[in-house]
Amino acid sequence: MQVVVAKEILKVNDTIAKENMEVFDRNGVYGINVLGSPGSGKTTLLEKLFVELDGKIRPGVIEGDLETSRDAERIDKLGVPVVQINTGGGCHLEANMVQQAITSLDLSALNTVFVENVGNLVCTSGYMLGERLRFVVLSTTEGDDKVSKYPPMFQRTQAMVINKVDLLEFTDFSVERAIEDARKLNPDIEVFTISARTGEGIPELAKWIVGKVQAWQGEAS
Amino acid sequence: MQVVVAKEILKVNDTIAKENMEVFDRNGVYGINVLGSPGSGKTTLLEKLFVELDGKIRPGVIEGDLETSRDAERIDKLGVPVVQINTGGGCHLEANMVQQAITSLDLSALNTVFVENVGNLVCTSGYMLGERLRFVVLSTTEGDDKVSKYPPMFQRTQAMVINKVDLLEFTDFSVERAIEDARKLNPDIEVFTISARTGEGIPELAKWIVGKVQAWQGEAS
Repeated sequence: MQVVVAKEILKVNDTIAKENMEVFDRNGVYGINVLGSPGSGKTTLLEKLFVELDGKIRPGVIEGDLETSRDAERIDKLGVPVVQINTGGGCHLEANMVQQAITSLDLSALNTVFVENVGNLVCTSGYMLGERLRFVVLSTTEGDDKVSKYPPMFQRTQAMVINKVDLLEFTDFSVERAIEDARKLNPDIEVFTISARTGEGIPELAKWIVGKVQAWQGEAS
Repeated sequence: MQVVVAKEILKVNDTIAKENMEVFDRNGVYGINVLGSPGSGKTTLLEKLFVELDGKIRPGVIEGDLETSRDAERIDKLGVPVVQINTGGGCHLEANMVQQAITSLDLSALNTVFVENVGNLVCTSGYMLGERLRFVVLSTTEGDDKVSKYPPMFQRTQAMVINKVDLLEFTDFSVERAIEDARKLNPDIEVFTISARTGEGIPELAKWIVGKVQAWQGEAS
C-alpha cells in the first residue's frame, strides 16, 4: 500500500515536473536544482555565484525551506528575482510547489532559474522539479563518508560541489576519497572544490554553469 | 489520500514505538534517539560519550544509515554492542526497523540504548521509535539559522547539543542566537555546547545523560 501510493505520488510529480520543464523551455529558461544537507552552504554559494555571473546570465531563484524567508531575503539583496516556498513540515520540494512559484517570476526576463531545495541529503533527490541540471553541495565539515552513506543523491546529480575547502585542515575530509566514492556511484559526475566563504573555486563553477546554459540555448535555438 | 495514508503510517508507527518502549521497560533499558543533519557529528559524539561514560552506564547502539555499516564499525571498536540498520533509500528510522534491530541486542546486559538516526534535520523528528529521550546535534558549521528554518526538530527534542564549537571562530554561528531561537520554539529545551573532536563539554552532557537514566531507573523501581 505504502509503495503503491509513493509510486503514484512520484508519477504525478514527474508529470508536473515535465510541465514545468515545458514552461521553462517556452521561456528560454534553464532550470538548475541545487541540493545538499542543511548548512552545506547552498545560499552562500548562490550569493557568490550571482556576483561572479553578473552580466553573464539572467538568473532567478526559487528558495525552498520549511519555514522563514531568510534565504530569499539574502538573494533579494543582490537584486536577483526570488520566490520563497515554505513547505511547512515538508522535507523536500515537489514539482507542484515549483509550478506555483514559477507564476510569481517574470520568466521572460530570465534565462536561468536556480531552485534551492530544502536542506536534505536524502528525500530531495527523489523529486524532479523541471530542471535540466542538478548539483549537490557537500561541505568538508560533513565528512567524506557522506558520499557512500547517502548514495542516491550522488547517483542522481551531474556535479558534486565540495564546499568549505578553507576548513579542510580542521577536518578529516579527504577530497580524493570523496571523489573516488562519488565516481564509483556515478562515473560521469563533475567535481568542483570551492569555498563559498573565500570565493575559491567559484569562477570555475560559474564558467561550467554558463557553459551548460549556453550549450542548451544552442541546442534549443 | 496522501494525508490519510501518512496518518495511517504514523499511527502504526506509534503503536510499534509503544511496543518497543515496553520491551525496553521490561529489560530496564532507557532508549535515547540521537538526531541531526548529515555530518553534524553524531557518531563522533557517541564515541566520546562512551569513553566518558565507561563504567557509569551499560550502553548499546542501534545505527541507522541508508547504506554502509561504517558507523557501526566505529562503535564496535569501542566494545559497545551495536546493530546497524540500512534503510535502503529511507530517510529516517521507523519503529518497526528498531523493533527488528532490538532482537539482535542482548538487552539484559544493557541499561541504555542509543539509536543514532539517519542524518536528516526534517523527517526523523516525526517518528517515535520507543525512546524516552531525544536530543538533536547541531554543528556550528551548519549555521545558527537552522533552528528557525527547521522548527519541528527543535520542538520535538529535549536537548540541543551544539557541536563543533572548536570551529566557532571560522563561522558566523552565534550560540546566543541559536539558543534564543530554540527557546522560542521549545522553552524547556536543554542546551549543551561541545566539541566532539576536542572533548570540550562532553563531561557535562554525559553527566546529564546519566542523571536522566538514573532518574528513570528510580521511578521505574
